[in-house]
Amino acid sequence: MKQVTFSVLATDGMGRRGRIDTPRGEINTPAFMPVGTAGTVKAMYPEQVRETGAEILLGNTYHLMLRPGAERVASLGGLHDFMDWQRPILTDSGGFQVMSLAKLRKLTEKGVTFKSHIDGSAYELTPERSIEIQTLLDSDIIMQLDECLALPAERKEMERAMELSLRWADRSKTAFNNQQNRALFGIVQGGDDPELRARSAAGLKSIGFDGYSIGGLAVGEPQEVMFRVLSEITPELPQDRPRYLMGVGKPDDILGGIERGVDMFDCVHPTRAGRHGHAYTRFGVINLKNARHKDDPRPLDEASPNPNCRRWSRAYLHHLVRTEEILGAMVLSQINLHYYQELTAGTRQAIEAGRLTDFAAETRAAWAAGDLPTL
Amino acid sequence: MKQVTFSVLATDGMGRRGRIDTPRGEINTPAFMPVGTAGTVKAMYPEQVRETGAEILLGNTYHLMLRPGAERVASLGGLHDFMDWQRPILTDSGGFQVMSLAKLRKLTEKGVTFKSHIDGSAYELTPERSIEIQTLLDSDIIMQLDECLALPAERKEMERAMELSLRWADRSKTAFNNQQNRALFGIVQGGDDPELRARSAAGLKSIGFDGYSIGGLAVGEPQEVMFRVLSEITPELPQDRPRYLMGVGKPDDILGGIERGVDMFDCVHPTRAGRHGHAYTRFGVINLKNARHKDDPRPLDEASPNPNCRRWSRAYLHHLVRTEEILGAMVLSQINLHYYQELTAGTRQAIEAGRLTDFAAETRAAWAAGDLPTL
Ligand SMILES: [Zn+2]
Ligand SMILES: [Zn+2]
Repeated sequence: MKQVTFSVLATDGMGRRGRIDTPRGEINTPAFMPVGTAGTVKAMYPEQVRETGAEILLGNTYHLMLRPGAERVASLGGLHDFMDWQRPILTDSGGFQVMSLAKLRKLTEKGVTFKSHIDGSAYELTPERSIEIQTLLDSDIIMQLDECLALPAERKEMERAMELSLRWADRSKTAFNNQQNRALFGIVQGGDDPELRARSAAGLKSIGFDGYSIGGLAVGEPQEVMFRVLSEITPELPQDRPRYLMGVGKPDDILGGIERGVDMFDCVHPTRAGRHGHAYTRFGVINLKNARHKDDPRPLDEASPNPNCRRWSRAYLHHLVRTEEILGAMVLSQINLHYYQELTAGTRQAIEAGRLTDFAAETRAAWAAGDLPTL
Repeated sequence: MKQVTFSVLATDGMGRRGRIDTPRGEINTPAFMPVGTAGTVKAMYPEQVRETGAEILLGNTYHLMLRPGAERVASLGGLHDFMDWQRPILTDSGGFQVMSLAKLRKLTEKGVTFKSHIDGSAYELTPERSIEIQTLLDSDIIMQLDECLALPAERKEMERAMELSLRWADRSKTAFNNQQNRALFGIVQGGDDPELRARSAAGLKSIGFDGYSIGGLAVGEPQEVMFRVLSEITPELPQDRPRYLMGVGKPDDILGGIERGVDMFDCVHPTRAGRHGHAYTRFGVINLKNARHKDDPRPLDEASPNPNCRRWSRAYLHHLVRTEEILGAMVLSQINLHYYQELTAGTRQAIEAGRLTDFAAETRAAWAAGDLPTL
């Protein structure tokens, strides 16, 4: 019997409050998944990630297949033991980063060959090899290999990539071989074209997946285009399967995605922004590098449930950022991941209470009101 | 009544087991003080530093006077609140780093003028200003300004610097103005010359300090020279005052210093070595960048009292170091600071039990035996 299951617990408009159950623990949705690129969420201990509220991490197949290598991770007991994160892990297929990072890429019907951006060594990634790698990593939720285009793109090119991705979806399903302790997600492609997206969704549904990812968004298009595609595509997807919007995004993108029926998100943005001195709070994003914080004795947010938002002055955080101290990256990564988890937890409560629209409006109004006035 | 006091609780040979009591808590000696250069022990939360066993931190006057500035730290409540470390802090005088880092230095009888290595702005540091800055930082243990020479140096030059440091010691004592809630330490100079060192110690004793630092060592001389100077100088210092060997060192230097009657140490080495992939354990120093750890499933030290030495494989630590992940710097800094605290705690127990010589021999034998054999 399938050991990874999904239940919708409540709905509000298009918004869904659900739960994914896995052998490694439950994932309450809408869920934000911190990205553990190369076997670590940057600048965070695993237990610190957990304490922000995260119930699942994303691991990057591309980075892990290069270093330390999937077979090595397997021989060391899998990714959970390797990094000491015992809760669920979702892995991507590697395809997106092959396209954005690798050198000398060559795409054929069979798959993609490329050279490592680190040392130039040659690799091949096919739908079958991607499933094999993700299985070696001991991933709980596996993605099919797909071809993801940047937008804008020609319709003909979007159609070709979508159809290739569908054929790869079929090969992925076969290679996955119905493993009972993991889930396999298909990926909807089709760019910003409603008809292509609908054909992609229909094709994936007829193959049948444990969940449906929405790929090919947040790849250069305006937010309104992304929201329009989401509004069109989620009604085409099975109601009883989780939907995952890949690589998204800023808090405002996530809130809009949840209002359009998305259940899962991932993004490097909160940790990357933290390493660059940006803090996400209910006031919106705060650039701590800014000189206006230099003498400010106030905490980042004295009403935050996160102790790190209350314990130090803005002046101290500014100092850490200006002196490029590692503690600054550590604290701001934690603050941002915590805020993302507060945001998704807030939408879960709001959907249960039937007040998602109000919650979203209140949250956006607080962001728009901005930071505390300068002292 | 003086609120910073020192008691010798036990002795064994020249080794001393003692305790410094301060309004912010006790410091058991021999003690190693982690360095919080610019208001943070690099890559560590304050509570993580405390959990390694540290009871006192060192703050760098030079770095803090440049950024964020002593007056700013004072207006934000002092260094303890600024960084959220509520236990004792010892500050250096700033002189050593002016000599090693600043530009356009000019030394006169009055003090030293220099330009910041960060932005070129001009500063003056005198014995009086150094005391003022350290008081603004709200330091618990304050150092006099001194002149520290690199070794080898001409005797005449060592004599001149030692005598200047004595005159500055006298001015520092006056400027310190007998503050009851802080301690003031004088600094013994005189290079590697026994007669100059003895004159320096005698001069400082006649001025009278709460503690005595030994400066001008670990500045390029062989370890045997440092040990010889220590053996000669500690008998010249008051038995009832703590002795602090500044800027030392590796575990072997610290053990040798304790055997020669030193009570306190500080060094950036454990955290800096951690950021460079080196781990200190009972096996000595282990370079985790080395390819021999690549497939090693064993923990760093399965018998360590430190959970971070037991929870991950060497292969994982190697991976973090090779991929230059921040978590590698975080974990190895913690591991090294923890080992330094284990080492000093071990000497405290050994002195109480009258077996410092045996403890030192056993510890050195384990280091000499080296790391686990390669798998
Ligand atoms: Zn992203
Ligand atoms: Zn040092």
